[in-house]
Amino acid sequence: MATAQADSVQDLIDALGRLPGIGPKSAQRIAYHLLKADAEESRRLAGAVLAAKEKVGFCTRCFNLSETELCPICADDRRDAHVICVVEEPRDVVAVERTREFRGRYHVLGGAIDHLQGVGPEQLKIRELLARIQAEGVTEVIICTNPNLEGEATALYLGKVLSMPGLAVSRIASGLPVGGDLEYADELTLGRALEGRRLVGEPPPAGPSGKPAPLDADDPRPESGAAG
Amino acid sequence: MATAQADSVQDLIDALGRLPGIGPKSAQRIAYHLLKADAEESRRLAGAVLAAKEKVGFCTRCFNLSETELCPICADDRRDAHVICVVEEPRDVVAVERTREFRGRYHVLGGAIDHLQGVGPEQLKIRELLARIQAEGVTEVIICTNPNLEGEATALYLGKVLSMPGLAVSRIASGLPVGGDLEYADELTLGRALEGRRLVGEPPPAGPSGKPAPLDADDPRPESGAAG
Repeated sequence: MATAQADSVQDLIDALGRLPGIGPKSAQRIAYHLLKADAEESRRLAGAVLAAKEKVGFCTRCFNLSETELCPICADDRRDAHVICVVEEPRDVVAVERTREFRGRYHVLGGAIDHLQGVGPEQLKIRELLARIQAEGVTEVIICTNPNLEGEATALYLGKVLSMPGLAVSRIASGLPVGGDLEYADELTLGRALEGRRLVGEPPPAGPSGKPAPLDADDPRPESGAAG
Repeated sequence: MATAQADSVQDLIDALGRLPGIGPKSAQRIAYHLLKADAEESRRLAGAVLAAKEKVGFCTRCFNLSETELCPICADDRRDAHVICVVEEPRDVVAVERTREFRGRYHVLGGAIDHLQGVGPEQLKIRELLARIQAEGVTEVIICTNPNLEGEATALYLGKVLSMPGLAVSRIASGLPVGGDLEYADELTLGRALEGRRLVGEPPPAGPSGKPAPLDADDPRPESGAAG
């Protein structure tokens, strides 16, 4: 039986189908869209793919993606150099920036500890983080790894190696998402939300770029006996 | 605030986000995937996009996508030239081919009648279809447009213009999908399934590439008074 699809169309579908989150159906849909659209759109897409790959490297300080030696955040003098937010991937920088709550700098680990995948602390930019803390006079580190198994393992490890005098180390809160529904929350998340409960009327801890809130000292929270 | 993302990364995300079915989140995910993967993958993707656009045109006979003047199906002598399956888009050819039930040839309309979008019969390859029926000695046309508003309007129109002696014109069946569930079927589909019911034990009509089944003559189905 003759193939119903031209070879170069099949090649395009295959190339698109290798991208994350794109199944065979989506790949086919996109391929036909590109073939139907004018040539300009294909040229722009191909050009963007090649240009990004060619121009973009890593910031030599924080290992975020950057077209320049220092990324725009590291190069920005208005950012608070004393606070570092540690994230797994460059996309996490974008996510934290979007909150407009953080005025410090970042450190991109390049992944999370995952022994099954052969990723240990030495594969991540942890040595570089320690060097920065000394060199840049950092006083606070906010561990912003993902709240999953690998991210928690990384946070636990970082908590240990970062335990040094004069350095406040915190971990972002886990709990119910804003606008979420108690009924549909999984038991782990709800357990974390209970564990991390705050007294009503308790002032929030100082913001990330302000003075770090005293961790553990004078904690007004009751013991978390209710958490599952 | 400095941009958290390098310009060329943002360009790539924008270009990907313009593709159908890819939202901003998926676009970002794919962009970071490409930046993380080795350069070969980006080159292959960009190359496939450009090559497909450059090499692929339309079959001069059936208007399927093709790298050659005649698409492989039209060029294949073993296909039955007397039966034409009329579809809206090249992707529908792939879908019908996958069934391995059809041994005739295709005719790709390039869309469906959609007056709201300004697509009338003259924008579709209907004139070319009529010319083929004369020139190629076609005896059966199977209208395989989508079972939605536009596809049905197109089928209705085709049914009228194709009404000529010696030409059997049929429409693919609407009904419950195989493996589907009566409970979850929408009322239109279930209505169509009732309307199109067949007597148990009734022999199926002759296959598409065989002799056309007599349409309407000696129809053993009861009047479809139950369909609603």
